[in-house]
Amino acid sequence: MTYCLAIAVDSGLVFASDSRTNAGVDNVNTYPKMFTYSIPDKAYLVLLTSGNLATTQAIVRRLQEDLESEEPKGFAACEDMSAAARYVGATSVELKNYYEKDLKQGANFDCTLILGGQYKDGPHEIFLVYPEGNYIQSSPYAPFLQIGETKYGKPILDRVIRHNTSLEAAARSALVSLDSTMRSNLSVAPPFDLLMYKTNALAPDHEMHLKLNSPYYASLRKKWGEGLMDLFNELPLFDWEKDS
Amino acid sequence: MTYCLAIAVDSGLVFASDSRTNAGVDNVNTYPKMFTYSIPDKAYLVLLTSGNLATTQAIVRRLQEDLESEEPKGFAACEDMSAAARYVGATSVELKNYYEKDLKQGANFDCTLILGGQYKDGPHEIFLVYPEGNYIQSSPYAPFLQIGETKYGKPILDRVIRHNTSLEAAARSALVSLDSTMRSNLSVAPPFDLLMYKTNALAPDHEMHLKLNSPYYASLRKKWGEGLMDLFNELPLFDWEKDS
Repeated sequence: MTYCLAIAVDSGLVFASDSRTNAGVDNVNTYPKMFTYSIPDKAYLVLLTSGNLATTQAIVRRLQEDLESEEPKGFAACEDMSAAARYVGATSVELKNYYEKDLKQGANFDCTLILGGQYKDGPHEIFLVYPEGNYIQSSPYAPFLQIGETKYGKPILDRVIRHNTSLEAAARSALVSLDSTMRSNLSVAPPFDLLMYKTNALAPDHEMHLKLNSPYYASLRKKWGEGLMDLFNELPLFDWEKDS
Repeated sequence: MTYCLAIAVDSGLVFASDSRTNAGVDNVNTYPKMFTYSIPDKAYLVLLTSGNLATTQAIVRRLQEDLESEEPKGFAACEDMSAAARYVGATSVELKNYYEKDLKQGANFDCTLILGGQYKDGPHEIFLVYPEGNYIQSSPYAPFLQIGETKYGKPILDRVIRHNTSLEAAARSALVSLDSTMRSNLSVAPPFDLLMYKTNALAPDHEMHLKLNSPYYASLRKKWGEGLMDLFNELPLFDWEKDS
């Protein structure tokens, strides 16, 4: 399993991903699921991946090959984020179909992706790309997208994230969301990758690779965990408890 | 959808359920999903239901008929909680099979149930009964069971519930869990039913029917929501934020 999320606030974008992969419960590994693409003076893009690891790695290789080709191809040939999302979707479907052509049954080569970033003079945006190659943009009312094991970590995002949330607060909510998910589902685990992008920078603002004992993440985890227990213990008493 | 949960702590049991049912998104209704069975001086049982509403209602009717029959049948004929869970499972499978015999395709008559309670001189226990009639007991390490839309509300239970948690704290965690779920999934909604059972009482200790504006639930919701935002806003700053 996997848990990745992207948040689009007024001041920029936040991307976060875990790094656990598993084929069954007895084949567990650690792989990055966040990939960045820089086209100097033109665009900066971030891809988050979930689903079949062979397919997502094939997609990542293809995107990189296209980017490095002599004539402008792929992200370099796109002029806006929507075109980039269409290109990622088409690449994903092409590669999945290629490997599925000899597939008999019982396997699933699908993958679901988040693509975010900005082309020069365009807005910063995030898109969720489905296995079928179609895609959606985040909502202005709930400006985040999630892939993989999304439910455990959604309540905190629903409470915190608004379009005008600061980039740093959005990043903290992403870490809390990953932390809640990791506690409830063993198939989501650190190290976590966290990337903050400030609008119009066309380059990353901050990149962090966080282990369980990384000082910032450890202090956030401790404060959140202890704070939640304190808050819980301060909840209003039932009427009959007040008499005792 | 549905969200119901039961918690078994040393001092007793907590049961909580929402009341939203839906057949598609355009056919939404409110039904109780908590049913209680009292056999004076012998047992007290609580059933929580999820899944196909026609099947769960058929099960509830049958359990009640058996209980009211002249010769001891059903819960009255059982001698412990495990036998009661086996009886509920067998009843569920029998009724599901009866209605499915003419089913062509495309519908799902399954239901998943939680049964909890106590027989005199036995322990208080909770069981999750699967659509196939088999069942599991709660773990001493995570002494709660959930059915329906279980993920949004699990993190708080994972953090709070231990075997020696007080009955009232367990009840509060159930309400927070329902509240988090309701915020993230429209198919879970109040009124909520909450029942607390103290071990060896063979009768309910407290029963509450909570609407969004019921004073206790409203104050708990407010305190939790505001407290979470305060806690979130007090999380450690990133290094670069401290300089500004």
